[in-house]
Amino acid sequence: MAVIATSSSLGLAAKLSRLLSKELLVAEEKVFPDGEKYLRIPGRLEGDVVIIHSLHPPQDERFMQLLLAVDAAKGAGASRVVVVAPYFAYARQDKRFLEGEPVSVGVLLRAVEAAGADALVVVDVHKPSSLDEWLRIPHRNVLPIKELASYFQGRLRDPVVLAPDRGALHRAQLAAQVLGAEFDYLEKSRDRVTGEVKVVPRSVNVSGRDVLLIDDIISTGGTLAAAAREILALGAGRVYAACTHALLVSGALDKLYAAGVEEVVATDTVPSPVSRVSVAEPVAEAVRELLS
Amino acid sequence: MAVIATSSSLGLAAKLSRLLSKELLVAEEKVFPDGEKYLRIPGRLEGDVVIIHSLHPPQDERFMQLLLAVDAAKGAGASRVVVVAPYFAYARQDKRFLEGEPVSVGVLLRAVEAAGADALVVVDVHKPSSLDEWLRIPHRNVLPIKELASYFQGRLRDPVVLAPDRGALHRAQLAAQVLGAEFDYLEKSRDRVTGEVKVVPRSVNVSGRDVLLIDDIISTGGTLAAAAREILALGAGRVYAACTHALLVSGALDKLYAAGVEEVVATDTVPSPVSRVSVAEPVAEAVRELLS
Repeated sequence: MAVIATSSSLGLAAKLSRLLSKELLVAEEKVFPDGEKYLRIPGRLEGDVVIIHSLHPPQDERFMQLLLAVDAAKGAGASRVVVVAPYFAYARQDKRFLEGEPVSVGVLLRAVEAAGADALVVVDVHKPSSLDEWLRIPHRNVLPIKELASYFQGRLRDPVVLAPDRGALHRAQLAAQVLGAEFDYLEKSRDRVTGEVKVVPRSVNVSGRDVLLIDDIISTGGTLAAAAREILALGAGRVYAACTHALLVSGALDKLYAAGVEEVVATDTVPSPVSRVSVAEPVAEAVRELLS
Repeated sequence: MAVIATSSSLGLAAKLSRLLSKELLVAEEKVFPDGEKYLRIPGRLEGDVVIIHSLHPPQDERFMQLLLAVDAAKGAGASRVVVVAPYFAYARQDKRFLEGEPVSVGVLLRAVEAAGADALVVVDVHKPSSLDEWLRIPHRNVLPIKELASYFQGRLRDPVVLAPDRGALHRAQLAAQVLGAEFDYLEKSRDRVTGEVKVVPRSVNVSGRDVLLIDDIISTGGTLAAAAREILALGAGRVYAACTHALLVSGALDKLYAAGVEEVVATDTVPSPVSRVSVAEPVAEAVRELLS
């Protein structure tokens, strides 16, 4: 068995190869003058192969590289190819919200399977049931909330963990268990006098307490920045933000720090300046399960 | 039946909808802040649908849009989706030239099928047998050489049509039939004194005659520019270049005109300043065949 790394997830792949005690092969990559991607896996493969390749921006280019890598691994002799796509792009378009829309996540999942993947591991995908809905191959969704929460252990005073919406409450609950904290989610509230819409904790009191905001993705950071402002206005102590996937587009970090957030922490599914928590261990565990 | 256009091939789609006497629907497209593509087909679909979407640069982004469009059309009620991808990207990587490489064209073809396409029409794909090798759905490869050659009818003096290599000779032969011309291909020849490698016509004499160079793709234009120089050095009259797909990267047109090429002409599979010949008629014919 070998672990194949691409430029998308080199650091995580190296950790994973150590945890799985397997050889690390780094794919050769280049771009032709017209923009087409080239990829080659060095050496003859045998047995099971794990490809680590995250799908953060530029998503479409990385997606093409993933499909090419799977086909290359199969062609080079791999008997089974386990794809680890720590951040799986397009996962938020998980249904036809309007008639005439695609189910983008289904399109991508089917393409990975059609390329020859024999199993898929993703991390904190937007809707885990998308995997069951669109894949016939075995799959795992790794939820690294324990790892994220552990980073804050012993650092928060009388903590409250807050999810930005009800759908994300399970993350807050898991993190709260690790931290021995209260948890809640944020909901929209309209000011009766000004008519202004605010995002406030549904019922928990944050006054004088440290708050950990937790979500799956920080993209532009707009939602969490607004939430941090409201929570600080309600008298919270320090506000922290944690997420699995730090996409951090359009100056997201600046926006969060400007809103008063003390620290932003993410996992290494997407390499970023705040990727201080690794998903290597739970991902290695998922790979072991799939290959056993 | 409807013809669905994306921003990739709007002009060609409009021509095709007229030739097929079908309604033209233009897909709504946008890009999310993190770079993910959004696409929506307006209105409820019925019966057979034709999606026109070429895969020129940025290929990976256009490929993602194509997969999303196919899924959207199926979801909106299309009974059969015929995909017309006039320029099909990644077609030159049609085998594993080195161990560990992907067969990129196979990866893309399988993904289009997995997305839900019921038939595929491409134009002058690099190796037409790739379609038979990788697709289970019906398919057509349209060769628009008659259309390209007709553009030059009556404009060339004692013409010779030249292919840049032996593999492209069939295009030169077809164009020569239309033009009542001689044809040949170029081969490498090493100067016995200087050791310099030149590209020269295999056997035909070009002295004092107009030459039409014809190829499937002009990408950087390097090959054709070098060929034009050699042919002019051999005393040819005027040299013209024709291709199906004008990718024209890295200043290709400048390079060709600087090498002495009189005019560069291409089809509209890839929108370009030299796309003076339309593939709409032969593509419409292929679509009719597939739907009959």
